[in-house]
Amino acid sequence: MAKTTEPNRNKRYDPAKPHITETPLTRSNWYKHVNWLNVTLIIGVPLYGCIQALWTPLQWKTAAFAVLYYFWTGLGITAGYHRLWAHTSYKARLPLQIFLAAVGGGAVEGSIRWWSRDHRAHHRYTDTEKDPYSVRKGLMYSHIGWMVMKQNPKRIGRTDISDLNDDPVVVWQHRHYLKVVIFMGLIFPMLVTGLGWNDWKGGFVYAGILRIFFVQQATFCVNSLAHWLGDQPFDDRNSPRDHILTAFVTLGEGYHNFHHEFPSDYRNAIRWFQYDPTKWSIWAWKQLGLAYDLKQFRQNEIDKGRVQQMQKKLDQARAKLDWGIPLDQLPVMEWDDYQEQAKNGRGLIAVAGVVHDVTDFIKDHPGGRAMINSGIGKDATAMFNGGVYLHSNAAHNLLSTMRIGVIRGGCEIRQNLSDRCIHNFIKHIISNYNSYVHQNGEF
Amino acid sequence: MAKTTEPNRNKRYDPAKPHITETPLTRSNWYKHVNWLNVTLIIGVPLYGCIQALWTPLQWKTAAFAVLYYFWTGLGITAGYHRLWAHTSYKARLPLQIFLAAVGGGAVEGSIRWWSRDHRAHHRYTDTEKDPYSVRKGLMYSHIGWMVMKQNPKRIGRTDISDLNDDPVVVWQHRHYLKVVIFMGLIFPMLVTGLGWNDWKGGFVYAGILRIFFVQQATFCVNSLAHWLGDQPFDDRNSPRDHILTAFVTLGEGYHNFHHEFPSDYRNAIRWFQYDPTKWSIWAWKQLGLAYDLKQFRQNEIDKGRVQQMQKKLDQARAKLDWGIPLDQLPVMEWDDYQEQAKNGRGLIAVAGVVHDVTDFIKDHPGGRAMINSGIGKDATAMFNGGVYLHSNAAHNLLSTMRIGVIRGGCEIRQNLSDRCIHNFIKHIISNYNSYVHQNGEF
Ligand code: HEM
Ligand code: HEM
Ligand SMILES: [Fe+2]
Ligand SMILES: [Fe+2]
Ligand SMILES: [Fe+2]
Ligand SMILES: [Fe+2]
Repeated sequence: MAKTTEPNRNKRYDPAKPHITETPLTRSNWYKHVNWLNVTLIIGVPLYGCIQALWTPLQWKTAAFAVLYYFWTGLGITAGYHRLWAHTSYKARLPLQIFLAAVGGGAVEGSIRWWSRDHRAHHRYTDTEKDPYSVRKGLMYSHIGWMVMKQNPKRIGRTDISDLNDDPVVVWQHRHYLKVVIFMGLIFPMLVTGLGWNDWKGGFVYAGILRIFFVQQATFCVNSLAHWLGDQPFDDRNSPRDHILTAFVTLGEGYHNFHHEFPSDYRNAIRWFQYDPTKWSIWAWKQLGLAYDLKQFRQNEIDKGRVQQMQKKLDQARAKLDWGIPLDQLPVMEWDDYQEQAKNGRGLIAVAGVVHDVTDFIKDHPGGRAMINSGIGKDATAMFNGGVYLHSNAAHNLLSTMRIGVIRGGCEIRQNLSDRCIHNFIKHIISNYNSYVHQNGEF
Repeated sequence: MAKTTEPNRNKRYDPAKPHITETPLTRSNWYKHVNWLNVTLIIGVPLYGCIQALWTPLQWKTAAFAVLYYFWTGLGITAGYHRLWAHTSYKARLPLQIFLAAVGGGAVEGSIRWWSRDHRAHHRYTDTEKDPYSVRKGLMYSHIGWMVMKQNPKRIGRTDISDLNDDPVVVWQHRHYLKVVIFMGLIFPMLVTGLGWNDWKGGFVYAGILRIFFVQQATFCVNSLAHWLGDQPFDDRNSPRDHILTAFVTLGEGYHNFHHEFPSDYRNAIRWFQYDPTKWSIWAWKQLGLAYDLKQFRQNEIDKGRVQQMQKKLDQARAKLDWGIPLDQLPVMEWDDYQEQAKNGRGLIAVAGVVHDVTDFIKDHPGGRAMINSGIGKDATAMFNGGVYLHSNAAHNLLSTMRIGVIRGGCEIRQNLSDRCIHNFIKHIISNYNSYVHQNGEF
């Protein structure tokens, strides 16, 4: 059985020798940096397919099968490689396991074992140096760059794949990967179209090569587009994002901010109207008895995450606005001084123990000059709060930006000062905290 | 010149005599409760127009003019009656005033003076008994019921319309209202279509009566639909709401939650992509020198209102979720007791001074059983927070629901207890607040 430390696919890799990535890329050694196997599989073959397509007529039956097989092989990656093996977000009976391992192989994106190991590292070390396809290294890098260029296996974060090493389907597929790829990627679609309606070449070019190309590019988008385009409703400290477009391209893997926050959930989209055919398939398999133990994160925690992220954004918005001078930074005024200044023509108005300078606002007052003038030099708390007119929240907000002072306690508006009293009291406490704690052994 | 107390239109109203609305509606007096003039104007005439339309061919020129005149008379109400006179949200030069008073009259919704008085009461006493068209009395009531049935003038909130009583255009239009209505509502459109392309009857039926009907129903929607359908981004204590549909019907008056919060703003919609042709017209008149002093509420206050309302909704959402037992309600545990229980097989894990029971979660742990087991009975604070794996926010949220106790100070994780220390300290302060204040004369 394969061991965790066993190198993946490349038998020639020797951890003792310095890896090629440890020598800088130069004009004379660049070709050694390139992963030619991958270049062949994800660039060379598709290019060859495109050229072949010029001479190959497309039959509608072949086209229909190519699209169907696109969905199957896509699901092999999303429902199989990703949600079943990398995240164990549900369990599958043997027939479903074999189906997913087969069609997943037909997508030509590496063995389950290799794919899941990298993907677990991607989740555990998202956006860091240890992330195999970190978007911080560029959109192109996260899309295909990380496969085109050789990677130092030591760089990529270590993860526990002991469960996969104990899984006979995974191990078998890993051992016989090349045979699986050739059969499921090319021969099987050719057999279908060839035996079915005698279109061997169309099956090879369209349902084989070009279909591989589209599935590859689509699922690669989970690593690139899903870390680059869209909203972050759960956590904005890392790059994963939710976007309907990515979801459409990736059979529902586009709600990637959710997925990175709740990777063990078999769903990527949680609302019924969101596009997640991978989830729908898993659910359908469950109805057929092929899948079970579908894991869901508790809704309470999902909602909490959303609320916290909204709070974070709200706090950022709040910090950008002018909320007036905080009460504790306002100078203290005597009541008599307030009245004196108001009599001398300054448009001062006291509401809730705070003095406001409304001089420039009198002419703009929506309730008219007379109304606002009637409060000048008085305690207008009651007037402003319903005595004459129950001002809107907007009026309160506006008023707070006109603060110029607070009135000293012992004046007519004593009651409104209790806030300030408490404020001074807390200030006093804080400065006496240490001596207090020392006196009271209990802490 | 008209006085504020002057009754509106109905010369027979005597404030000394008991008003009909003070006697209950019965089978024998119901017809006395009905406002027959209004019934004729807003139900009878449109009905007559519909019947006439059956025999009247519609010429395309007449149709085009009817639509154009619909917009003009609609603007008379929205840009004229509403934003110019009721709210003085901008100033207009005499030609524009006359134009708006004329086409506004053509909408057949009462004089500027009567309309604005009621509308100011509607803003000042929104949703209360003094609101002339309170939606709290039903959607139909706020739409036309308040006009179809007689209203007790004493019920409707008093407002200051001294500015309107000083406005010669307003007073002239009020004095000659019936002539204005007949001329602008019917004769003027007939003259246009009759002299223009000899379609006198089409002008009467389509550009006159049916156009009046549509303008009336559309603008009535501001009182009904705009208080019933949509979002409340600024304040949800009262009924006004924002909805694109209402905006489409009412030439942009559908952002009504904004409007009730910032009634002195000449805009109802503040984003460029929102539909507010009334705002666009006022802006265009400004470019032509016909309008000036366009008032806008400060953006800072608008943003503050939005942030506060979002915060309110967020707090409501937060209150519905399970955030775990608050720290101050948890029992205190000794460190040795914690270790003892963990050794005896209970899945207890201490993170940041708090003990969590993860027994039921071990099998579900996305990082595997071995990982989580390695923290049991230990201080797992560092492990959980990056030492082994930097858990997501979701994991922290989940953890908090598993709280069962806090560890007594003086244990290994002393530092994490400072929160609890402060908590006890504040508790102490609160219970000693009164005696503290009395000792310290300064307050
Ligand atoms: C204390 C004396 C004041 C009185 C008696 C008073 C009275 C009124 C009245 C009667 C209205 C209603 C106008 C209408 O809808 O027809 C009004 C509106 C308004 N007043 Fe005052 N006002 C006073 C002070 C102030 C001050 C100091 C501000 C400064 C922020 C202010 C801001 C507003 C605003 C923004 C409105 C528009 C409607 C609203 O947002 O609630 N008022 N006022
Ligand atoms: C203290 C010992 C613990 C260790 C060493 C540990 C380790 C790990 C590791 C390594 C992963 C990453 C799995 C992967 O992506 O492959 C993980 C994931 C996770 N762990 Fe733990 N864990 C511990 C305790 C807990 C506890 C007590 C909870 C309870 C809430 C928890 C909740 C989770 C969750 C929800 C994940 C999924 C990824 C995430 O949301 O961050 N862990 N843990
Ligand atoms: Fe990702
Ligand atoms: Fe994933
Ligand atoms: Fe309204
Ligand atoms: Fe209004």
